[in-house]
Amino acid sequence: MDVISVIRTKRDKGELSPEQIDWVIDAYTRGVVADEQMSALAMAILLNGMNRAEIARWTAAMIASGERMNFDSLSRPTADKHSTGGVGDKITLPLAPLVAACGAAVPQLSGRGLGHTGGTLDKLESIPGWRALLSNEEMLHVLDTTGAVICAAGDGLAPADKKLYALRDVTGTVEAIPLIASSIMSKKIAEGTGSLVLDVKVGTGAFMKNIEDARELARTMVGLGTDSGVKTVALLTDMSTPLGLTAGNALEVRESVEVLAGGGPADVVELTVALAREMLDAAGIKDADPAKALADGSAMDVWRRMIAAQGGDPDAALPVAREQHVVTAPSTGVLTRLDAYDIGIAAWRLGAGRARKEDPVQAGAGVELHAKPGDTVTAGQPLLTLHTDTPEKFDYALKSLNDSWDIAAEGTTFTPNPIVLDRIA
Amino acid sequence: MDVISVIRTKRDKGELSPEQIDWVIDAYTRGVVADEQMSALAMAILLNGMNRAEIARWTAAMIASGERMNFDSLSRPTADKHSTGGVGDKITLPLAPLVAACGAAVPQLSGRGLGHTGGTLDKLESIPGWRALLSNEEMLHVLDTTGAVICAAGDGLAPADKKLYALRDVTGTVEAIPLIASSIMSKKIAEGTGSLVLDVKVGTGAFMKNIEDARELARTMVGLGTDSGVKTVALLTDMSTPLGLTAGNALEVRESVEVLAGGGPADVVELTVALAREMLDAAGIKDADPAKALADGSAMDVWRRMIAAQGGDPDAALPVAREQHVVTAPSTGVLTRLDAYDIGIAAWRLGAGRARKEDPVQAGAGVELHAKPGDTVTAGQPLLTLHTDTPEKFDYALKSLNDSWDIAAEGTTFTPNPIVLDRIA
Repeated sequence: MDVISVIRTKRDKGELSPEQIDWVIDAYTRGVVADEQMSALAMAILLNGMNRAEIARWTAAMIASGERMNFDSLSRPTADKHSTGGVGDKITLPLAPLVAACGAAVPQLSGRGLGHTGGTLDKLESIPGWRALLSNEEMLHVLDTTGAVICAAGDGLAPADKKLYALRDVTGTVEAIPLIASSIMSKKIAEGTGSLVLDVKVGTGAFMKNIEDARELARTMVGLGTDSGVKTVALLTDMSTPLGLTAGNALEVRESVEVLAGGGPADVVELTVALAREMLDAAGIKDADPAKALADGSAMDVWRRMIAAQGGDPDAALPVAREQHVVTAPSTGVLTRLDAYDIGIAAWRLGAGRARKEDPVQAGAGVELHAKPGDTVTAGQPLLTLHTDTPEKFDYALKSLNDSWDIAAEGTTFTPNPIVLDRIA
Repeated sequence: MDVISVIRTKRDKGELSPEQIDWVIDAYTRGVVADEQMSALAMAILLNGMNRAEIARWTAAMIASGERMNFDSLSRPTADKHSTGGVGDKITLPLAPLVAACGAAVPQLSGRGLGHTGGTLDKLESIPGWRALLSNEEMLHVLDTTGAVICAAGDGLAPADKKLYALRDVTGTVEAIPLIASSIMSKKIAEGTGSLVLDVKVGTGAFMKNIEDARELARTMVGLGTDSGVKTVALLTDMSTPLGLTAGNALEVRESVEVLAGGGPADVVELTVALAREMLDAAGIKDADPAKALADGSAMDVWRRMIAAQGGDPDAALPVAREQHVVTAPSTGVLTRLDAYDIGIAAWRLGAGRARKEDPVQAGAGVELHAKPGDTVTAGQPLLTLHTDTPEKFDYALKSLNDSWDIAAEGTTFTPNPIVLDRIA
C-alpha cells in the first residue's frame, strides 16, 4: 500500500477501498503519511466526493485511531447534542442541564471557537474559576453526580480526526461534506453516547449556506450514527440571523442563565426546548416536560451544580467589557434582515473569537442586539451595542457591519424564518 | 493576502489573479506557505485547471524566484532541447554534439531519472570520470570551447520549481498539464536559451498516454516560450515502444556513440536528425546538414571534446553488468507490439533507475532489445537480454514483462508508428 496510489484513486474519481482507507488513516496518525500528502487527498475528496460506504469506513477508521469511551456504568440513558456552529449559538449551555433535569445523562464534549462562530468552552470560561479540562475520571464523576458535564474532548478520542481537522483548517479543505460528517460523527461515536441530536445550521452565519447542502450533511451524519447503533436525529435550524440577542462569551452566558431562570429570548427558548424534546425522545425518556423544567427551576439547579463541580462560581459576577459603542437604526420601519455572518465577524474582531488557535479571547467582548428581524425600529434608536476591552478595534468591527441589515417601510408585513426548518431521522 | 483565500479561489473554480500567483509562489519559496498548503493548491489546480494567463503568470513567478542565465557573451546562437521523458530516450547524447557541430551553442541542463524513465545525467555518469556538477563559470567555459555542454541545473535556477517539483512527486500531483508546462518552461526560460525544441512523448512509456493530452501540453509550452521571446517548436513523437535497442545507462551511451559514429538504430538516427534540423532552424542557422555531420565524424569530435572537458574519458571501456538473462520469443511471426512502459519498469527494477532520489543506479543494468515492432521473429530466438549486477532482481523484472508484446501470424502486414507524429509551432 502506498499513499500516492491512494491519492491517485480519489483524484481520478475512483472509490477508495476499505483497505486503502484503513491504511491511510492509520499511516497518517502514525506520521508515515505526511501532512502534504493528506492535504492533497483532502482536496481530492472535497472536489470528487466520497460515497456512503467510503464515508462510513473513513469514520470507522478515525474512531479506531483512538480510545472509545463507555457510559454503561451510568444509571441513566445518555443523550448528546452537536451543533455545526453558528453565531450566538449558546444553546448547549441551557440545554445540557435542562435535559439532565429531565432524567438523561448529558456528556457534552465541546470545542473552542475558530473564525466567526463562538466556542462553548470559551463561553463557559468567562465564569470565574470554571475549568474545561477534566480527566476521564473527573468527567464521569461530574456526569454521574450532576447529570451533565460540558468539557474539552480528551486527546485520546479520534486522534486522527484531531490531526486532520487542524490540517483542513489551514489548507482550504474544511468545506467538504464527507470530511465534516466523518469528523463530527467519529468523535460522537467514540464518545460512546447512546443517542445523538444534531443541530445542523443553515444560513449566512453557518458553514452550510443553503438548505440542500445542510440536508445532505444531515442525512450523511444520521446515516453514519444509525449504522453505528447510535439513535441519531437531525434538526435543520435557521442561522440567517444570530440566535438570541447576544454574540460573545460572557454575554451569552448571561443570556443562557436568563433562559434557565425561565426568561430569555423567545428563539433561544424555542430551540432549547425543541432540542431537549428530541434528546429525551432519542434517549427513550417519556413523560418529561422540558418547558416545565425551565419554569420550575430544576434545570437551573443542575446548571449551578454542574458549574460548581468544575470549579466555577455560579453566583460570581460575569466579566464586562471596558468599552461600549452603540450603533443606531438609520431609519424607521420593519427590520427584515440582520445578518448572522456579519455580526459574527464583528464579535470576532471585537475580541470574542480568535484568529489562531493559540490566541486568547476576551470574556466581555461581543455584540448585543436590540432588535431582531420582524421588530419595528425607530430612526436613532440603538440597534446594536458593541463591547470590547480594545476600543481601537471598533472601526475594524464596524467595517464588517456595512451592509448587514435591511429596514423596510413602516407597516410592511414580514414573517421571520421559523427556527426549525426541517427534521431528518 | 492569505493562502487559504488563494486555495479557495482555485478550489471553487475561480481564476487566480496575478497578485495571488506572485504572492503564493514567493511565499512558498520563502517557506511562509507550507508544503501542506501548496499541495492542496496543486491538487485544486490539477482538478480545476488554469487558463493561459494564469499559466503564464505562474511560470513568470517561478522564473522570478531565482537567477536568470545569460548566453549573450557567446559568439553563436543558442539552441536547446527538452524531452518530456521516455524509455530508451538517449537522444540528448548524440543530439547536443551534433547541433554544436552544425554551428549552434547547445546548453543542456539535464536531470536524473525517477520512475520508469531514465535520466540523461545518470547515463553520462557511466562514463568513467565524467562530472555532472559544474559551476556556472565551468559550464560557460565548456559550452564556449566545445559548443555543447550537458550538466546538472544549478540550485539558483527557478528554486520555486525545484521545491514544487519535489512536492508534486510525493503528493500525486505530477500529472497536471499547467504544472508540467510551467515547470519545464520556467527552467528553460530562466536558462536563457534563444530557441527551444520540445520533444513531447506520446504513448505507454510517456507521461502523456494519448495524443490529445500531448497536444495540449505542447501547445501550452509553445505558447509560454513564444510569449517569453524564446523561439519554441514542439514535435510530438512516438513512445509506444522504446527508442532504439537499449534502455539503461551504459547501454544507452554505447548506442549513442554508435549513432555518432554514423551507425546506430534507424529510429534513433531519424529522431536525432529531425530534432537537430528543428533546433538549427529555430536558431536561425541555414545550410547545415546534420546527417552529413554524423557521417563525416564532426559530431563525434564535439562529443569527445565535450566528454573530456567534463573529466570523462571518451575512450574508456563502459561498465558492463555482471549477469545477463535472455528472454526468447514464444512463437514465430511479426512483432506488432513491444511495450515501452513495461520495458522501462523492467530496466528500472534491474537497477538502471531509482525508487528514491537518494538511491544509486547501476551503470550496467538495463534491457537490450533484439527486435522492434515490424520485425519478424522466430520461436526461441532472443527477444530481450536483461542486464544487472543483482541477479536476484531477474524475477522481479520479469514480472513486469508479463504481457509486454504481441506476435502476429507470419506474413501479417504491419506498419509501425512513425517516429514524429505531429509538429506544433
